[in-house]
Amino acid sequence: MMQHSLWHCSISMIFIIPLIMLPFTTDASEKLVEDLFQYIDAHQDDFVQELKDWIAIPSDSSDPQLREELIRMVEVTAQRIKTLGATVQQVDMGFETLHGGQKIKFPPAILAALGNDPTKATVCFYGHVDVQPAKKEDGWKTDPYTLTEVNGNLYGRGATDNKGPVLAWINAIETYISLKKDIPVNLKFIIEGVEETGSPGLEELIKEHKEFFSDVDYVVISDNVWLSRKPALTYGTRGNAYFFVEVESGKKDLHSGTFGGIIHEAMRDLVYLLANLVDSTGRILIPGIYDDVPPVTEEEQKLYENIDFDIEEHKNNTEVNSFLYSTKEEILQHMWRYPSLSIHGIEGGFAGTGTKTVIPSKVIGKFSIRQAPNMQIPVVEEQVKKYLEEVFAKLNSPNKLKVSLEIGAMPWVANVNDPQYEAAKIAIRKVFGVMPDMIRDGSTIPLARIFQDLTKKKVMMLPIGGADDGEHSQNEKLSRSNYIQGTKVFAVFFSELPKLHEDSLTKSNQKKPKISQLIGS
Amino acid sequence: MMQHSLWHCSISMIFIIPLIMLPFTTDASEKLVEDLFQYIDAHQDDFVQELKDWIAIPSDSSDPQLREELIRMVEVTAQRIKTLGATVQQVDMGFETLHGGQKIKFPPAILAALGNDPTKATVCFYGHVDVQPAKKEDGWKTDPYTLTEVNGNLYGRGATDNKGPVLAWINAIETYISLKKDIPVNLKFIIEGVEETGSPGLEELIKEHKEFFSDVDYVVISDNVWLSRKPALTYGTRGNAYFFVEVESGKKDLHSGTFGGIIHEAMRDLVYLLANLVDSTGRILIPGIYDDVPPVTEEEQKLYENIDFDIEEHKNNTEVNSFLYSTKEEILQHMWRYPSLSIHGIEGGFAGTGTKTVIPSKVIGKFSIRQAPNMQIPVVEEQVKKYLEEVFAKLNSPNKLKVSLEIGAMPWVANVNDPQYEAAKIAIRKVFGVMPDMIRDGSTIPLARIFQDLTKKKVMMLPIGGADDGEHSQNEKLSRSNYIQGTKVFAVFFSELPKLHEDSLTKSNQKKPKISQLIGS
Repeated sequence: MMQHSLWHCSISMIFIIPLIMLPFTTDASEKLVEDLFQYIDAHQDDFVQELKDWIAIPSDSSDPQLREELIRMVEVTAQRIKTLGATVQQVDMGFETLHGGQKIKFPPAILAALGNDPTKATVCFYGHVDVQPAKKEDGWKTDPYTLTEVNGNLYGRGATDNKGPVLAWINAIETYISLKKDIPVNLKFIIEGVEETGSPGLEELIKEHKEFFSDVDYVVISDNVWLSRKPALTYGTRGNAYFFVEVESGKKDLHSGTFGGIIHEAMRDLVYLLANLVDSTGRILIPGIYDDVPPVTEEEQKLYENIDFDIEEHKNNTEVNSFLYSTKEEILQHMWRYPSLSIHGIEGGFAGTGTKTVIPSKVIGKFSIRQAPNMQIPVVEEQVKKYLEEVFAKLNSPNKLKVSLEIGAMPWVANVNDPQYEAAKIAIRKVFGVMPDMIRDGSTIPLARIFQDLTKKKVMMLPIGGADDGEHSQNEKLSRSNYIQGTKVFAVFFSELPKLHEDSLTKSNQKKPKISQLIGS
Repeated sequence: MMQHSLWHCSISMIFIIPLIMLPFTTDASEKLVEDLFQYIDAHQDDFVQELKDWIAIPSDSSDPQLREELIRMVEVTAQRIKTLGATVQQVDMGFETLHGGQKIKFPPAILAALGNDPTKATVCFYGHVDVQPAKKEDGWKTDPYTLTEVNGNLYGRGATDNKGPVLAWINAIETYISLKKDIPVNLKFIIEGVEETGSPGLEELIKEHKEFFSDVDYVVISDNVWLSRKPALTYGTRGNAYFFVEVESGKKDLHSGTFGGIIHEAMRDLVYLLANLVDSTGRILIPGIYDDVPPVTEEEQKLYENIDFDIEEHKNNTEVNSFLYSTKEEILQHMWRYPSLSIHGIEGGFAGTGTKTVIPSKVIGKFSIRQAPNMQIPVVEEQVKKYLEEVFAKLNSPNKLKVSLEIGAMPWVANVNDPQYEAAKIAIRKVFGVMPDMIRDGSTIPLARIFQDLTKKKVMMLPIGGADDGEHSQNEKLSRSNYIQGTKVFAVFFSELPKLHEDSLTKSNQKKPKISQLIGS
């Protein structure tokens, strides 16, 4: 559990600041905000009850036995979006082939639209209603499919990932409708049911429904969490280029007593190759790998200054003795915006406990490079292959080398001054009384980049859950406060976006900045 | 299957040479050899039938379900040795504790003695009557517990390892008794039933029965195979110092996306350490490791010249592209008499198929050094630890390093001119018409060294099986020819040893040579 003095400060501000600010605001938009907040606060138990109903459906997409429940969950979601007055399309996603060869239906995907006023901006919300597996006996303190409130936290599988945020978005829209207020933006939904198994078919879906996205201006994804307990907006993720480096000395494993000393052992070649990938300071040794990494601009540097991040606490969470860097800025930058190389393991060697005297004939080293924005997968692939082949050539080994790229997931970075970010910043300030931390995620979340590349629209990751929510873990939760305040953030975002959107349209003839200038520019 | 032109030659000699030689020999000892051979040839079907009876008992020491069968096998062996007129003692070996905590009886060990003439040399034969697991469905072409003769080969689990050689020794003694000939040596037996599970309790047994070994002059072990299909005597085995090198960065595995770039990754430290153990020419990089390796003397060098060893064939058998060395002598020496270092694998990393983006927190590299004779385990252990600690220190890593010796099995080498070797050479020449290859085994067979160290007696490894016998594999076999000719070798060995033993006694006041001079001296 994270503890921040800064957070203690912001907690109080959530409740105090709006109360202080509101009496001094008089214009129509502030009245709207007041009405929205009042309605949302008044109906929070209804919102929690609906989340409880959704959590009760065990929509685990990894378990074929639960496929009917998953399909039911998508149906419930579609019907719920229909009650908002949206037109809802359930797109057939075909069949999934199980390991045994059996085929079962994929759940349909939902494409929905509410409003089509050509004078308004159009926001498309991405979410998913499938969940990770969960069993009480895995260490859950409460039944994972019975939403249970303990000390202000709502425990249940899918609470934060991703049913809570999907419902918060729906709640925000419902608030406008119930208050008979005009929704300031056109809204679209793309909701899927297989995100936790890698979103199979999602890219095809987007490509095949180009017309659906043609009038979309912004895509909002709310499927990650803050860095701490302080609100945050995510504007970047690193890519992942995962490599296999295989060395083969022959067709069969040999006994180290009988053959040790006369064989060019594949393991020796492999550990030598792996040992030459990265030095002990964390610097990647592959020539050219840093060439496309953009320099840190002064503006970007400033983004790190106020971020709520406690090094000692982070060290305790990771349970390591020390980090490679000592300042907050260096650590965040090396987690988020510089490439890193990790060696994961070796397949084919003796990996069991005990002592086995084998000379393995074929071993596969596995490592991956988290790419910074601008680094291109084909360039990284060529650099890695060329380098490893050169290092291997120096060994004069008769063994066979094979280097292959197994995953090539691209990094993503957004312009933090784009209208959707500016609107979200204002919404967060109005709800929480603090400016959000502008954060990235060091890990690879392909969704934002997929939407950006396939739809050519502006994408934002707008999380409402806290760093301690335990998505994918036992005892996953979303706090009642995050759920209700998150609903308010979405509602205010709808009202703040139009003005900024118009501003940006007037600037749209200006020259587009290069990606390296986007960060903090 | 191995094919040698030399072997085709020796095959014919087996049958031809004795027939040619015998008419020209007239002395008593040659008459004895003639009688022995005649009896053994005449009774070979009886010998095969008894081997069939023994193979029919599934004495798999690794299977607790078969423990009663194993105990029955020891009992059958004890009774068989009694029929020779020997005094037989079955020593209780206590209980084995299974993984589940259950205890089951170990089979007893057999200590037996036949003859105690103080004027004769005393030879103790070591053997075992337990076998490796075997199931028809594992790929056996015949039932593993039904000895089946196909094209002159006797297929069955335990045929060559080790029931065939134990019975050949018994057959040889029985031949003397049946022919009413005085056995020229006193005979002892030590037979165990748990060799295939690592001979638990054997060292204690030897230590606790010092008086049994006090009058023994020679220990003969017939529990390995030739290098090819040409007869061989084994005079050395390499030791094995098996090390774990553990690097620990923290208490839990981390996600490479979230934490890659700020962590001193344990895998990186480990592959660097492993990559610095041995170079690409096979040379071990640990300072001092070659200090105690004896130089190759001119006499030893000569031992390699006539050895039946075909490099191309060996390459095909190992299925590697090329060896580190190109001449027969270099290859044999690096398999047998120089140390080698093999890296077996890494425990704790991601070793599965596919792609997992983990930063493992604790990884254990496993490697072993096959020691040459003279290399001492404590010296090797100190050299390895000191070196790895120095290499690790240069990394300035905050991770924890732990190097531990997990197995410390000593090498063994015998004086090939000792009486037991000279007698065996003569016996082999008389039976097969060729001088045996003087070979070593690159792998570690602790038995010879254990007997040598604990009993202080002269030890010999005298195999009768061929390199293609498939001990430990499916379709294990002993050829009928090897079984019967092996019986003859043992019988002639009994008659040849006494004279050489006496010669050695007259020389016993001479200064003992150093181990480095023993080889081929």
